[in-house]
Amino acid sequence: MLPGVPREMRGIMTEELLPWLRSRTDHDRRVIRSLTLRLTGIAESQLPDLLGEHAEGVGSISLAYLPGQEGVDLRLTVRDARPEDADRTLVEAADTLRRRLGKHWYADGPTDLAEVVITACRASGRHLAVAESCTGGLLAARLTSVSGSSHAFVGGVVAYDNAVKIQQLQVDPKLLERVGAVSEEVARGMATGIRALMGTHIGVGITGVAGPDGGTPEKPVGLVWIAVDIDGTVVVYGGRFSGDRSEIRFRATQAALNMIRRQLLSVD
Amino acid sequence: MLPGVPREMRGIMTEELLPWLRSRTDHDRRVIRSLTLRLTGIAESQLPDLLGEHAEGVGSISLAYLPGQEGVDLRLTVRDARPEDADRTLVEAADTLRRRLGKHWYADGPTDLAEVVITACRASGRHLAVAESCTGGLLAARLTSVSGSSHAFVGGVVAYDNAVKIQQLQVDPKLLERVGAVSEEVARGMATGIRALMGTHIGVGITGVAGPDGGTPEKPVGLVWIAVDIDGTVVVYGGRFSGDRSEIRFRATQAALNMIRRQLLSVD
Repeated sequence: MLPGVPREMRGIMTEELLPWLRSRTDHDRRVIRSLTLRLTGIAESQLPDLLGEHAEGVGSISLAYLPGQEGVDLRLTVRDARPEDADRTLVEAADTLRRRLGKHWYADGPTDLAEVVITACRASGRHLAVAESCTGGLLAARLTSVSGSSHAFVGGVVAYDNAVKIQQLQVDPKLLERVGAVSEEVARGMATGIRALMGTHIGVGITGVAGPDGGTPEKPVGLVWIAVDIDGTVVVYGGRFSGDRSEIRFRATQAALNMIRRQLLSVD
Repeated sequence: MLPGVPREMRGIMTEELLPWLRSRTDHDRRVIRSLTLRLTGIAESQLPDLLGEHAEGVGSISLAYLPGQEGVDLRLTVRDARPEDADRTLVEAADTLRRRLGKHWYADGPTDLAEVVITACRASGRHLAVAESCTGGLLAARLTSVSGSSHAFVGGVVAYDNAVKIQQLQVDPKLLERVGAVSEEVARGMATGIRALMGTHIGVGITGVAGPDGGTPEKPVGLVWIAVDIDGTVVVYGGRFSGDRSEIRFRATQAALNMIRRQLLSVD
């Protein structure tokens, strides 16, 4: 047990306790080390089939499947290894697994998917803007939580009320009337509209039913439409996310970020 | 220990284990019960002076000071009481403390300040829109995380790039040039601009330096200007928030929400 509020405890741990413990271990010490591969767009239950003979581990490396709102984290652990062998073994196993995981792997832990997207935008010299209805600013908040995001992220519109979709994003009011706010057509209109409004290469539109109220038999709680317009090419996804209001909103932002990542990096 | 992922564990706990435990206690049972008062805009170290003779507790009620990003939670606990006495004692002590706490109390736990603001907007029949720079959508995301927020929250603009502040929010480019984006004048312009753009009663503008880069001696990391325009009356706050990028952003949203609350509810 260590004293202090979390920030102080972390300082005591990294600056005092760990160096002290290390100074007391001998040169023949054996270590436990881990590396985490972050996956999204795949369920924990689908992973064993995808990993085949590596589903339980790779050589002496064991695997832990850690599902969460962001997707599944795959933690590789090597035990009882010499320090100089541990990292090499982990890197080799991670390479083997990444080839199996394909498009589902987006980063090594603990990197957030938003950071991967900002990095990809910057690498391709593209600017990004977002138009959000049901996620209400959460996608913009995740993108701008990345330090240096201002080099790629220009801005966004939270179009909660339909009047904002019409007046700011130039979504056709007759279209809204005919197909409703939660629709493929309106998601497309929002993505293209925000791209035009902010003069960016990339525009994203998200519209859905976050619940707990507002669901109908045709448009149930959890239904979300996401459109990503990159240089005029629009990709659309419609699906139903599970969970409560907070989970549905977060999962919609994760799916949107993954769509941008896959289009920008041509990952299929 | 209970099996299951968190959601399943909660179901087992509330639907099976707690009723089973209750069925096995006799009628003379004594309970421990708590009630939490949520405070913001006051530091933990200032609370004892404010609470005076109640700083340690109220009668048999003990107090715990729980500081966090949102402010300080003050947890009242009654121990070894009959169930019928416990709640009455807690409510009486909470009334006594709330009178001392004044403007700093905003809700009983676990209510988020964003919910208090949405409720106050709805009660006063006012609509709300936000313009965010350094918080990058986080204020909109917190407001829209409240179920039913669409009755009060109309929309927002994430004005990360100065071009968005100029083109969408009608902030004067010469003003931006002269005083810089992080300034009282630009916060005012953003609040008034978003109110005009979205046709709402309330407009909020936030601009600041979230860090870790971008700070200068005149405008250090953590400096944030917040303006709240309600029916044409603008209140502005400028201050320096501590913490890392994530903490500075969150604390700025909390301060903005508290400004709206205090103006709408006339709490001084």
